[in-house]
Amino acid sequence: MGIHKFFTSLNDLERIIRCPGRFKFEEHNVAAHSWKVSQYAMFFGTIEEMNGSIIDWKSLYEKTINHDFAEVFIGDIKTPVKHASPELKQMISHVEEKMMEKFIFNEIPEEFQEVFFDRMKEGKDATIEGRLLEFADKLDLFYEAFAELKRGNSDKEFVSMYQEALKKLLVIPLPSSVNYFKNTILADVITEKTPVDITALTKEVLTEAKPSK
Amino acid sequence: MGIHKFFTSLNDLERIIRCPGRFKFEEHNVAAHSWKVSQYAMFFGTIEEMNGSIIDWKSLYEKTINHDFAEVFIGDIKTPVKHASPELKQMISHVEEKMMEKFIFNEIPEEFQEVFFDRMKEGKDATIEGRLLEFADKLDLFYEAFAELKRGNSDKEFVSMYQEALKKLLVIPLPSSVNYFKNTILADVITEKTPVDITALTKEVLTEAKPSK
Amino acid sequence: MGIHKFFTSLNDLERIIRCPGRFKFEEHNVAAHSWKVSQYAMFFGTIEEMNGSIIDWKSLYEKTINHDFAEVFIGDIKTPVKHASPELKQMISHVEEKMMEKFIFNEIPEEFQEVFFDRMKEGKDATIEGRLLEFADKLDLFYEAFAELKRGNSDKEFVSMYQEALKKLLVIPLPSSVNYFKNTILADVITEKTPVDITALTKEVLTEAKPSK
Amino acid sequence: MGIHKFFTSLNDLERIIRCPGRFKFEEHNVAAHSWKVSQYAMFFGTIEEMNGSIIDWKSLYEKTINHDFAEVFIGDIKTPVKHASPELKQMISHVEEKMMEKFIFNEIPEEFQEVFFDRMKEGKDATIEGRLLEFADKLDLFYEAFAELKRGNSDKEFVSMYQEALKKLLVIPLPSSVNYFKNTILADVITEKTPVDITALTKEVLTEAKPSK
Amino acid sequence: MGIHKFFTSLNDLERIIRCPGRFKFEEHNVAAHSWKVSQYAMFFGTIEEMNGSIIDWKSLYEKTINHDFAEVFIGDIKTPVKHASPELKQMISHVEEKMMEKFIFNEIPEEFQEVFFDRMKEGKDATIEGRLLEFADKLDLFYEAFAELKRGNSDKEFVSMYQEALKKLLVIPLPSSVNYFKNTILADVITEKTPVDITALTKEVLTEAKPSK
Amino acid sequence: MGIHKFFTSLNDLERIIRCPGRFKFEEHNVAAHSWKVSQYAMFFGTIEEMNGSIIDWKSLYEKTINHDFAEVFIGDIKTPVKHASPELKQMISHVEEKMMEKFIFNEIPEEFQEVFFDRMKEGKDATIEGRLLEFADKLDLFYEAFAELKRGNSDKEFVSMYQEALKKLLVIPLPSSVNYFKNTILADVITEKTPVDITALTKEVLTEAKPSK
Repeated sequence: MGIHKFFTSLNDLERIIRCPGRFKFEEHNVAAHSWKVSQYAMFFGTIEEMNGSIIDWKSLYEKTINHDFAEVFIGDIKTPVKHASPELKQMISHVEEKMMEKFIFNEIPEEFQEVFFDRMKEGKDATIEGRLLEFADKLDLFYEAFAELKRGNSDKEFVSMYQEALKKLLVIPLPSSVNYFKNTILADVITEKTPVDITALTKEVLTEAKPSK
Repeated sequence: MGIHKFFTSLNDLERIIRCPGRFKFEEHNVAAHSWKVSQYAMFFGTIEEMNGSIIDWKSLYEKTINHDFAEVFIGDIKTPVKHASPELKQMISHVEEKMMEKFIFNEIPEEFQEVFFDRMKEGKDATIEGRLLEFADKLDLFYEAFAELKRGNSDKEFVSMYQEALKKLLVIPLPSSVNYFKNTILADVITEKTPVDITALTKEVLTEAKPSK
Repeated sequence: MGIHKFFTSLNDLERIIRCPGRFKFEEHNVAAHSWKVSQYAMFFGTIEEMNGSIIDWKSLYEKTINHDFAEVFIGDIKTPVKHASPELKQMISHVEEKMMEKFIFNEIPEEFQEVFFDRMKEGKDATIEGRLLEFADKLDLFYEAFAELKRGNSDKEFVSMYQEALKKLLVIPLPSSVNYFKNTILADVITEKTPVDITALTKEVLTEAKPSK
Repeated sequence: MGIHKFFTSLNDLERIIRCPGRFKFEEHNVAAHSWKVSQYAMFFGTIEEMNGSIIDWKSLYEKTINHDFAEVFIGDIKTPVKHASPELKQMISHVEEKMMEKFIFNEIPEEFQEVFFDRMKEGKDATIEGRLLEFADKLDLFYEAFAELKRGNSDKEFVSMYQEALKKLLVIPLPSSVNYFKNTILADVITEKTPVDITALTKEVLTEAKPSK
Repeated sequence: MGIHKFFTSLNDLERIIRCPGRFKFEEHNVAAHSWKVSQYAMFFGTIEEMNGSIIDWKSLYEKTINHDFAEVFIGDIKTPVKHASPELKQMISHVEEKMMEKFIFNEIPEEFQEVFFDRMKEGKDATIEGRLLEFADKLDLFYEAFAELKRGNSDKEFVSMYQEALKKLLVIPLPSSVNYFKNTILADVITEKTPVDITALTKEVLTEAKPSK
Repeated sequence: MGIHKFFTSLNDLERIIRCPGRFKFEEHNVAAHSWKVSQYAMFFGTIEEMNGSIIDWKSLYEKTINHDFAEVFIGDIKTPVKHASPELKQMISHVEEKMMEKFIFNEIPEEFQEVFFDRMKEGKDATIEGRLLEFADKLDLFYEAFAELKRGNSDKEFVSMYQEALKKLLVIPLPSSVNYFKNTILADVITEKTPVDITALTKEVLTEAKPSK
């Protein structure tokens, strides 16, 4: 049914809940997540630009807006599955790609197919926009975990989600963004009063991450 | 943490929602689904027994109670993904199996491991209990789709879920159960007043299913 | 409408919420509860069998699967009401029985009535299967209360639900199961970090329960 | 804990859902229901006053505000149970009364006990205020059923709830109110477009209700 | 459509959620809030009467039942907006009034218009009933905030909502009610175990409020 | 608290529900809405570019991503209020602006303030990007109303929301987009089977909108 079908499929992402099966005080859907990722990218793109990088803003925003569209086809497969084996991860990526292809061929009018193929392809590449997407996506995971810890969710999953996201954020090759996050944002994060000891969890990661001389 | 960990993981299945991403008037979780499957199996096991089959009831109930436990690890992967390619389907089954194995080795005390391996293995085999599980599982899909159609959900997904489940039910090698379902239950189903024309949808499948001479 | 009506009534139990009127971080429905009770019974039936008892597994599973079906008719009457007076408790049991009878006579085809009467009758009798049902049912109450305490629910109702369930579990005449629960599971339970002091609440009950010489 | 305990118990009624176990497009809690009953009573009290009756407004409002407070103790017992036998209905009323008494003696400071006993007693007596309470309470049932039918809920329970409420409304001994309801409000109700044929359901009841000459 | 339209609009208030946009463990709708306000007013009206005041009960109950009906038109505008500027506050009050007027002229039959105008006008005037409404309305805010703090919600908004409500309660010109609240109810409130230090938050306000000699 | 505070405030928009107080089969939050608006803008920006316009994509995406951020301060004020009088609408816009200003001055570090002022200002200006924002925003209203009508919601509000959104879409000065919407998308929309007669509602608007010669 063409673009009408594409537009109505956007609504499906409002019903895909992140981290299915875990107890959480607040649920997040993939549509809202994508929006927050765009917001983070807007800010850190600005940081990078202020520090001399050249940002292709069109590409950056399209990456963030589209990066999880394929969950329309596969849902939010639990992360442990995705990473159970390199073969499985690759196979799932492959299926995602194939289903996207099929969708574009079947639903998108020919004159728009090229543009859709271009926009819907995996965005986390080595370009600065790809790295900003990776950074913004992990930051949302970080904030989702932080919010649960703050409300008193002591389930191990969220503790380790918080620490894993933090670890990954610190090593993404975007020095200015990492710096701002680490020195300014993280400093504010650990001043919040939380039932779980966020400061300790954070310091544990920072200490590990410190390069030995 | 042993059996305590296993017991708390049961609660996770109350948060895995079936058919994620689809609009539905009523949601169903995997724990409640497993219970309904046990109920259907109890009834159709009785039908088969009345018609001369010998039922291993212990096996039948354990199959139904445990058949979706592995969704604790992988969530409810959308059916189209599971069937996107035979290789993927097989690979996902394989991952499920491996994660179950790992869980049993790590969490279940040694003296219970054998019994857990036996109970948690894929239940849909060629035995009469395996076929009753398959029948009961499809019947719940049938009833979930029916309930949505009855409330006025006209999304194509539920129409085709209803017809697909019906098609599969009719060819499961359990003649007495299929017969009872077709002649008695289905007869009642199509008398219900529904905004979507259930009778037509049902007859379409029955006609197709009719073996040509 | 016969068995179709019975099958659709199963869905009603997905909408009966346990402990109505109490604030809880997570709700549980009677269908999912019944499934968890079957799981606990499977485990403790195994424990008893390993310790030399003979288990009628068909009976055990049917007891657990069916034990709350009558809530279709009466809902989850608040426990204080059920126990307000022995007469009321008995009268409510009686009504439950009568409504079940009426349902079976009106809805279940004659050839299945006997089997339904047999399966739907009160299951908590003195047989080992009846005691395992009682044990499994109380264990789910124990775990529901535990989960609330773990999330930080400090309402008196859940503290006393936790302690009451524990007290009853410890005196059910199933020495091997009680032993395993007390020495192995409970030991794990109290190692979990919780805002409410679970260890103290647990020890309070254990101390009281200790038989004086 | 006195009045503080009483005030926090009001919050419990926000969690008691009416018609537990039925599928509904919209749920209603007992607190909100009590408020709507007060609103209807305000209107029909005015109608009666305009037609020459003397209304004790203080009594009327206190009856409507308090009429379901006892559900704090017993929840919303399903109507079929309440009416399963006259003895049971009476016994449940009796338990309700006893639990209310106990609550007042235990929680309410002595200087307020008399006033609480007076306000919390069963309000549906033969006074005009008692009849207005009965009328307003049934009217809310009528509107709850109507809203479900209007959204397309075709479950038999709501059809019969609509017709039963209507039948009872028409015979409550409040001629001016019944008249206004029947001639003015009902006339508007049946002009609404609904998937279920409200006009037919309504006329069925009106015809039956018509006194034969 | 007249009174039928008015009656169905009551249902809208069950969907207006208080404090939109804030994280909360439990939501409250405006209909249930109005009922709780009536309950508080009933109690404090009694206190005032016991202390020699004359209460116009009809007026008191009508004020509490109707005080938020205008939210049908405007929703629960966030408090900071309402108080952003005196002009805005006044303008919003004015709009509310105008929309209410329009509603009454368009929907309410002429013979009831006067009575509706009278009942729906702003109730928080200088009469004792107006002050009791103000007191009861603030008390519900106080209890909503208290319940969140008790469940462990440490968001600044609820801390300050608790303290602001408390501050305002203490200065409403109803000495007997304020006294009872301060000496009896508040004494019970601060004995509850809460993750947030309620006693400290409360004392902070009480100290500030204490008139200097 | 700077940018950390800004980032956590994004989460608030996941709790602001659109069209508060109306019955709807599916709710939408402002965060997810903003994402869908970005998606529509991406498509229609492409249409306009293909038809010879020059699009400032950075501006377009920032407009769509930020256009409802101010609802953090004021919530989703019901549309009838916003349009009750031109003065009120202007005053509310003014308050929104002032609160945004205050937020930026208080929370955003000085080096980013200019960039935030620029991005957060009202985006619906006369530029092609401003018109695309207007188009995309109305389109989401159109699709929200359409989805409700499709599920059988016959409340007048959604019928008129559908028609109002359609009317406005047809006259936004973006001939290529309007054309594509009208001739291609709308053609698909009216082929969907819906309980409410979408075709008639649509044609009514199209006929009215047709310019007389």
